[in-house]
Amino acid sequence: MAQHEAPVPAWRERGADEGTYRSVFAYDSTRVKHPSAGWVRMFKDEFGMTDTDFMTSGDQGDALVELAEPSRIDPRHRSAMVAIVGAENVADDDYSRVKYGHGKSVDEDLALRAGVAPQVPDLVVHPRHRADVVDIVAYCAAEELPIVPYGAGSGTVIGTRTDGGIVLVMRTHMNHVLSVNERTMTAIVQPGMIGSDFEALLNDAPRTFGTSRAFTCGHFPQSFELASVGGWISALGSGQASTYYGDAYDLVVSQEYVTPVGIIRTKDYPATATGPKVNDILKGSEGMFGVLVEATVKIFRYEPKNTQRFAFMLPTWEAGVEATRDIVQGEFGLPAVLRISDSEETERALALKGFDTGPANTFLSMRGFTPGKRCLLVGTAEGEKGFAKHVASMSRKIARRHGGMTLTGLATKQWEHGRYSDIYVREDILDFGMVIDTLETSVTWDNLQTVYHGVRSFVKSRPGTVCMTHASHFYGQGTNLYFILILKPETPEEYFAFRSAIVDKIVELGGSTSHHHGMGNLFAPWLKEHLGTAEMDVLRALKAHFDPDGIMNPGHKSLMRTQS
Amino acid sequence: MAQHEAPVPAWRERGADEGTYRSVFAYDSTRVKHPSAGWVRMFKDEFGMTDTDFMTSGDQGDALVELAEPSRIDPRHRSAMVAIVGAENVADDDYSRVKYGHGKSVDEDLALRAGVAPQVPDLVVHPRHRADVVDIVAYCAAEELPIVPYGAGSGTVIGTRTDGGIVLVMRTHMNHVLSVNERTMTAIVQPGMIGSDFEALLNDAPRTFGTSRAFTCGHFPQSFELASVGGWISALGSGQASTYYGDAYDLVVSQEYVTPVGIIRTKDYPATATGPKVNDILKGSEGMFGVLVEATVKIFRYEPKNTQRFAFMLPTWEAGVEATRDIVQGEFGLPAVLRISDSEETERALALKGFDTGPANTFLSMRGFTPGKRCLLVGTAEGEKGFAKHVASMSRKIARRHGGMTLTGLATKQWEHGRYSDIYVREDILDFGMVIDTLETSVTWDNLQTVYHGVRSFVKSRPGTVCMTHASHFYGQGTNLYFILILKPETPEEYFAFRSAIVDKIVELGGSTSHHHGMGNLFAPWLKEHLGTAEMDVLRALKAHFDPDGIMNPGHKSLMRTQS
Repeated sequence: MAQHEAPVPAWRERGADEGTYRSVFAYDSTRVKHPSAGWVRMFKDEFGMTDTDFMTSGDQGDALVELAEPSRIDPRHRSAMVAIVGAENVADDDYSRVKYGHGKSVDEDLALRAGVAPQVPDLVVHPRHRADVVDIVAYCAAEELPIVPYGAGSGTVIGTRTDGGIVLVMRTHMNHVLSVNERTMTAIVQPGMIGSDFEALLNDAPRTFGTSRAFTCGHFPQSFELASVGGWISALGSGQASTYYGDAYDLVVSQEYVTPVGIIRTKDYPATATGPKVNDILKGSEGMFGVLVEATVKIFRYEPKNTQRFAFMLPTWEAGVEATRDIVQGEFGLPAVLRISDSEETERALALKGFDTGPANTFLSMRGFTPGKRCLLVGTAEGEKGFAKHVASMSRKIARRHGGMTLTGLATKQWEHGRYSDIYVREDILDFGMVIDTLETSVTWDNLQTVYHGVRSFVKSRPGTVCMTHASHFYGQGTNLYFILILKPETPEEYFAFRSAIVDKIVELGGSTSHHHGMGNLFAPWLKEHLGTAEMDVLRALKAHFDPDGIMNPGHKSLMRTQS
Repeated sequence: MAQHEAPVPAWRERGADEGTYRSVFAYDSTRVKHPSAGWVRMFKDEFGMTDTDFMTSGDQGDALVELAEPSRIDPRHRSAMVAIVGAENVADDDYSRVKYGHGKSVDEDLALRAGVAPQVPDLVVHPRHRADVVDIVAYCAAEELPIVPYGAGSGTVIGTRTDGGIVLVMRTHMNHVLSVNERTMTAIVQPGMIGSDFEALLNDAPRTFGTSRAFTCGHFPQSFELASVGGWISALGSGQASTYYGDAYDLVVSQEYVTPVGIIRTKDYPATATGPKVNDILKGSEGMFGVLVEATVKIFRYEPKNTQRFAFMLPTWEAGVEATRDIVQGEFGLPAVLRISDSEETERALALKGFDTGPANTFLSMRGFTPGKRCLLVGTAEGEKGFAKHVASMSRKIARRHGGMTLTGLATKQWEHGRYSDIYVREDILDFGMVIDTLETSVTWDNLQTVYHGVRSFVKSRPGTVCMTHASHFYGQGTNLYFILILKPETPEEYFAFRSAIVDKIVELGGSTSHHHGMGNLFAPWLKEHLGTAEMDVLRALKAHFDPDGIMNPGHKSLMRTQS
């Protein structure tokens, strides 16, 4: 039979229609991004799919959102909210309740496709400013009404699910940079500010804030265009340049929370020795202590012209691990981006770009970089020019010492190109009955390979499971492992059981249940085993202090006195 | 009258005798260090003292320690402790009770000189290991007996004072490095380990722990030869190289505490997103939550040959502040040591070394570095060779840009020479009725000058008060201000009232009550105003959780339900 060109899959070309479930679960209702031909080849190879399988999709969630039961909100409470924020900022229609009752987990995506939304809030409120939040929380505390703070809904760990109660949407109005202070290198931001908007304002600070320099926020998660600053802090996010700039935890200098027992405003001292740091105690509380209304975060000089890029092929994953360890322990300054891909991710990255055949691959193979073994390393160095050059030069030297061959900075540029948009292919994949999901863990250097090999061999014991792994946030003491899973499960339940078994394995082998996605209800069941009972009790004591009646994000079961 | 050489003051030449009060309050019973002739000139000039005043000293605390009342410990409790740790590790003699009931505050020094020790423990116990501590805490929790964890007693904020109860001395036996892990760049240390001993072991790690490299702990407080690792963590200390290595807070990867409600062992993940970080919540708890029995701390490559030193004279304090701000915000890596001295400290530093007259001074003055205005900057850069060179070179460039003139690295070497031993002159000064004490605060860059000038002008409103100020721990967001006070008060009470008014002023102007000395009972009265009631309540809630019966360090009143 003559070779023929594979027909293009019937990818959906239009965005999500207004009012549909799809418009709720899609990362962006207006945007589509299709998997490349390389991805389709992978789907066929791995899942035994045929061209025919790509002709008709499964449920794309085009039904209009409709709930079986209307809001149970007491009209008295509804009126109280209207009195505070105005009628235009209060909603209890089905669509609003579903939209602001969901995040972006695969679980929620799959359920919404099927029109299933069993747990939603009774009322959606869009506070205009801090004073609204103060009034709302005071009212809800007095009336023992549940409150769920909702940043921009990009979380993947089911952290904002609620059965009834009031959702406070910060994204709508509380999305401003209140000030930029170039003397103290800080900005005061409202929690609903989206990362990419924040960065744009800081890059343009001389114009927008009259500063003498441009700044950067230093925090670039893959969800950069989707996630809010409040979400970064609440779920302890890490950006792709965290190795240099630090995690969200490190970036927050001071904060203000409105809690059921009062307002907590921490002060912006660079360091103090006045007892345990309350500012840090609040970070990562995932809406369970109070509503974050303002954060003072570090900013950095923005000098993109100084950015150095490097990329290497290393003979093995082990060499990649040792090279990156040497780099971050080398005391010569830290790269901003640093990422190593295991052999499966490396091979697939090459294949997805069509580089797995042809002269480049032959050349690499001849040089001893064997397909199925080799490891891609990409990195950038930022900051002052000489510093960036030195960090990049030392990193290159170390990569070479570990057997690496330079691919030039172009490979890094290519990676940068897709760093925020790759996420948008998810809907196409799910449209055709496959699942793409991620699990991530934090490991010490000496436990890394145990977790890596243990988890990977468990994952690969399920036939037809793609598992690409990378490490992308580095510390002197260890790194993270980020597992991208792609599979075509029999049923969603089959996938969830499988995922659950993978998390069991991660925790059993000593990995953290999460490095930077947060805990949410998704990981809450493992928290006690992961942290230990005594540590959980500390978090529960804090929860009891801030929220004695359990009204703050009560759907998040992790810290409730009695776990569900 | 012909110029005559001033007679040498009648400094005490011998150490402290065994069993005396002096042996309790002296930093080191065997060591004496005298103020230089420059210091004596300063005392005479500032306090109107004459040679005669230096002929006879005040009370040197040579009386043998003797308490009016014997220990009130119930013999049953004493026996219980003996059963746990052995008779040789239990003491209730007067000397032990006084020795381990005191830290190194000026207040304690002055009281002890007069033989006054109104609050001491009933029993001193030296646990041998973790298991002893577990048994002791369990026993004390059941019997509601007060416990005070005591590291090495170098604290200056009256943080371990107790009226009765049991002191646990960690210094005696629990002073080992349990392991060094060069893959994860961590060491597991017991809390009673002294800084300089720890550093010596790490520097010699290839021999002591069979590692392939030598390491450094990165933490060099002035109390390096006196303070314990447990103390660093409990009181949130900062070392002189903290600008690069971080504060004690940053160094602790994981810890184990024995608390009245159980053992808390945090895990050594480099980062996690599993809710608020319990590991951080425990830091700075000053013995009020539990007994620290083990800490896993970061270590760093030790490459002293790479150290770069730089020193500059800048025209003014303002120029020094702006230069250091530029340095730490410059994104080219951070200096390890960085320190600027205000005009009074600069002038006195020159005078104390005899540099205030003669050709060097004339040269400086001619170049526009006017006495009474100029500002000394010293710094080092550590780490990998090229990195250290670059940081030093950029720092020099910035210092020059701010009008600085290089003094070469020799001035830094000179400063390094006295960095740990200067502290030992205190006893001579107190012997002659003067006081030397320090206050320190943390400030943001935009509030620095307000706090500096406000505090300084208040201090200088008292005639005959030497006040040397420096900033020595730098962050992108701000720095610390460290005030060294030297005066000859009418009475100790006059000094205490004065100091209290200075702290009032610091807090009023928005400085933190402490940057790295801890809070202790000395600063507890300001904590509520400084932190705010809602923040204090968070700390109190934690205290109530860990220590429901209030047995942990109950003399530390700051977090008790009812403040004394």
